[in-house]
Amino acid sequence: MLRPIISLTTDFGLRDPYVAEMKAVIFDICPEANIVDISHEIAKYDVRIGAFTLAYAAPYFPKGTIHVAVVDPSVGTKRQPIIIQTGKGYYVGPDNGVLAQAANNDSGPKSIRRITNRKLMLPHVSNTFHGRDIFAPVAAHLANGTSPNAFGPKIGKIAAPTYAQVTKRQDALVGEVIHIDTFGNIITNYQPKHLKLIQSKPQINIKIGNTQLRLKLCKTYTEVPPHKPLALIGSHNFLEISLNQDNAAKTYKTRTGDKTTIQLPQRTNNAKTKHSPTKASV
Amino acid sequence: MLRPIISLTTDFGLRDPYVAEMKAVIFDICPEANIVDISHEIAKYDVRIGAFTLAYAAPYFPKGTIHVAVVDPSVGTKRQPIIIQTGKGYYVGPDNGVLAQAANNDSGPKSIRRITNRKLMLPHVSNTFHGRDIFAPVAAHLANGTSPNAFGPKIGKIAAPTYAQVTKRQDALVGEVIHIDTFGNIITNYQPKHLKLIQSKPQINIKIGNTQLRLKLCKTYTEVPPHKPLALIGSHNFLEISLNQDNAAKTYKTRTGDKTTIQLPQRTNNAKTKHSPTKASV
Amino acid sequence: MLRPIISLTTDFGLRDPYVAEMKAVIFDICPEANIVDISHEIAKYDVRIGAFTLAYAAPYFPKGTIHVAVVDPSVGTKRQPIIIQTGKGYYVGPDNGVLAQAANNDSGPKSIRRITNRKLMLPHVSNTFHGRDIFAPVAAHLANGTSPNAFGPKIGKIAAPTYAQVTKRQDALVGEVIHIDTFGNIITNYQPKHLKLIQSKPQINIKIGNTQLRLKLCKTYTEVPPHKPLALIGSHNFLEISLNQDNAAKTYKTRTGDKTTIQLPQRTNNAKTKHSPTKASV
Repeated sequence: MLRPIISLTTDFGLRDPYVAEMKAVIFDICPEANIVDISHEIAKYDVRIGAFTLAYAAPYFPKGTIHVAVVDPSVGTKRQPIIIQTGKGYYVGPDNGVLAQAANNDSGPKSIRRITNRKLMLPHVSNTFHGRDIFAPVAAHLANGTSPNAFGPKIGKIAAPTYAQVTKRQDALVGEVIHIDTFGNIITNYQPKHLKLIQSKPQINIKIGNTQLRLKLCKTYTEVPPHKPLALIGSHNFLEISLNQDNAAKTYKTRTGDKTTIQLPQRTNNAKTKHSPTKASV
Repeated sequence: MLRPIISLTTDFGLRDPYVAEMKAVIFDICPEANIVDISHEIAKYDVRIGAFTLAYAAPYFPKGTIHVAVVDPSVGTKRQPIIIQTGKGYYVGPDNGVLAQAANNDSGPKSIRRITNRKLMLPHVSNTFHGRDIFAPVAAHLANGTSPNAFGPKIGKIAAPTYAQVTKRQDALVGEVIHIDTFGNIITNYQPKHLKLIQSKPQINIKIGNTQLRLKLCKTYTEVPPHKPLALIGSHNFLEISLNQDNAAKTYKTRTGDKTTIQLPQRTNNAKTKHSPTKASV
Repeated sequence: MLRPIISLTTDFGLRDPYVAEMKAVIFDICPEANIVDISHEIAKYDVRIGAFTLAYAAPYFPKGTIHVAVVDPSVGTKRQPIIIQTGKGYYVGPDNGVLAQAANNDSGPKSIRRITNRKLMLPHVSNTFHGRDIFAPVAAHLANGTSPNAFGPKIGKIAAPTYAQVTKRQDALVGEVIHIDTFGNIITNYQPKHLKLIQSKPQINIKIGNTQLRLKLCKTYTEVPPHKPLALIGSHNFLEISLNQDNAAKTYKTRTGDKTTIQLPQRTNNAKTKHSPTKASV
């Protein structure tokens, strides 16, 4: 008999008892649950980083996994607790965008429900800790096989966080730093499709914040000497700027949200040019 | 068949292999154990914070849970290793107060035993790591169904950490900051019964350390604008001072143990006053 | 039915989704696996600390445990992914020394295999995250009972990290700080056999970096007053320098790799002296 998997993504940290309270509630309702921590070190209140982290990890989980994400700066207000069902599994959390990116990766929601059934929550629901009082018991009941219908009515759509799109200017691709990992790798929103525009040159001219870099596009970190910078397509298919065995974000004082610009190769004068928008999402 | 739950609360941190050694010992004796981490980031040697964290989380665990807590500055001395049995489960650790608060919440110990049976410990017991050599194997044997009688003789009472009680002065309630969580919420020892004395006014005048605050008593963090202070009864029934989406403890330079004072409403002159003690635990 | 145990030791940290991706891959292949984290807070790229941490914890795990260690600064280069089988279990990771110390403690490798079978890896193997793409699926297939033969050809030997040996000079034992734990305990490479040379005196004269200390050799931390220094043989059989309930490494500004010198007792003039090498590994 398979143990149902419940994943947890929160900004609660590991010092306080909050995560353990959620786990205790889950095991009390569904003793055979297999709980997997994705991260509890999401930057406090940062819904985008929570959404991003969950979306990174979720594709590797087995079909049927129940993902719970609680980065919830508006806990206790009228933002709604929801369950999203996709073709691959369930997403449980506040309707503030934290679930959207991962659910969309599963080719989108099949159904969305507002959680209203008090019988499937803890008897006392606090105003400040829905992770323990609503989301943990709901996930555990789902794991026990309770039908999604039982939790509440269907709703039409969910909140989505707005992410910077890569935009094309006449001579450049403008993007953004979307994450900095604990190695100090600078993860941008450029994907391989964008890099095709630079004609697969082995060099990339990229500006991150105020730092202009001319980098080799590598396959591994070790193609440059230790402490030297490089660019590569990381394990999640985004362009990363890294230092071999060192911390790029510290070195370049980079933060999540910093603007990035990749210079496009200059066209020759006789190239046919169409009228094209000076700025376009690509 | 239910997997027996063993919870762990320590000050060992997650960088070193100490926690894993405890888990390895447990699984070697009781392979079907379900180990749940409460926290391993208790401030080093801080028995009170350990006791507080365990007491917060324990009520949410299923009946029969075996809680192990190791915050043990006197390891290797004559402080005793003990097992407390309550109506709800077991508490295993040093007799230094770390188990007392949680056990008392379970309506108190039903029996207390000193752990003396060397056959139920690791073959070699070090002087410095009883978490691995005594408490982990004892918890695993309990999980296997070994009778509490087998571990050692009954003893009469346990050590308890001393907590500040809220005391009433003529015009004020004097309390204490008992915990600061990773969100920077300042958790005090005032409970709803104390706040009744301020006649459920929507405003609280509270002094924390040297900072005097006049705060709205809210139900959710978002009743005030971002970065603004508020008071609320937190998810564990204590009065918390918070900033909406910000860190109150950093802003007010507050630490665990800081004294707090809540001003009581002034009596009208014609109020009947009894002779009452100028300072009383309430 | 026993759940097969897979331990994880990495430098990935707990903030990013990397560890969860490894766990998701493992549970997708082997749903009944029992995953135990040894540490994910190994200092980035520090193969020696990774090897040391794994070697500390591994002896306490049950027979048959599959240990995965990924501290892998050369990921994507020609360093090989390997499986080591010992008399006690399996070690899976890069052949850069991170597995060597633990495997040697199990009385050494019985067989070593290079991992070459692409069918037992994830369908797409990135150049930067072999933990998820190679080591996690290999461990899960081993846990499912796949024969080690299936993963790749036998090879003759493995890389080993070089550790400082304790060396004897005429009047001193020269050693090294091999680890500093989160309590600030300074763990050296002196073992009880070295201390016999100082004739079991209750005092040790030890120099750590530039700090000269005269310490009592204790059995427990509490034999000296709080905040005072002591020496003891720690729970893993190495000489530790500690402060009772305080942080020795911070106080003495000590780092991993610092040289240490223990003064040997002076010989009397009439002692027979042989010609002996002025420096020898002991």
